Amino acid sequence: MLGYMNDEALRRTIAEKEAFYWSRSRSCLWHKGESSGLVQEVIEMRIDDDQDAVWLRVRVAGSGASCHVGYRSCFYRSVELGDLNANPTPLNFNETNRVFDPKDVYGDAPNPTRL
Amino acid sequence: MLGYMNDEALRRTIAEKEAFYWSRSRSCLWHKGESSGLVQEVIEMRIDDDQDAVWLRVRVAGSGASCHVGYRSCFYRSVELGDLNANPTPLNFNETNRVFDPKDVYGDAPNPTRL
Repeated sequence: MLGYMNDEALRRTIAEKEAFYWSRSRSCLWHKGESSGLVQEVIEMRIDDDQDAVWLRVRVAGSGASCHVGYRSCFYRSVELGDLNANPTPLNFNETNRVFDPKDVYGDAPNPTRL
Repeated sequence: MLGYMNDEALRRTIAEKEAFYWSRSRSCLWHKGESSGLVQEVIEMRIDDDQDAVWLRVRVAGSGASCHVGYRSCFYRSVELGDLNANPTPLNFNETNRVFDPKDVYGDAPNPTRL
């Protein structure tokens, strides 16, 4: 997944070794897994040359999924390369099965992501 | 590395199977490797659930490095977790040797990244 952190999210992630983000859609600190139980334990945090991006290696609790639509990874599809004429651009499913049903995990909570 | 794409960068990356980005510091389309020769051949492009982020698996020409300061990865350091009292926060080098000398590759061209 790709997420955003503010200062507090970064500090708490370093201190508590669990991933915190800044939710841009909800404008609040977001402890990943607080509603789903899919907490991300941070095993390693890498930082880039100009220190404005971090890369996390995590161990996810429960089903091990990080994507709120039910897949293990948010990047569950790939883009077919080489052909721009197809409309829409073909996407292939690299994960064919969801790990969980979002209804079971989130109930009727509004989904902040517009799909 | 983490980079940004605009519509043209995304289209050209899909069509040409080489990574293009939008350079925010230079405000121009950026064909990665155009000055360094370190072109990124795109092997796979994944896209996330709400389709605002892509993840590229690439084969890099030449020395195989993607970071303009000379390391293979921009994420060549890790952050020590668990302790917020240290100032500055300790960083460990996961890559100890640069793959190339930026002076040899970029000469005296101004470095757009403030380190």
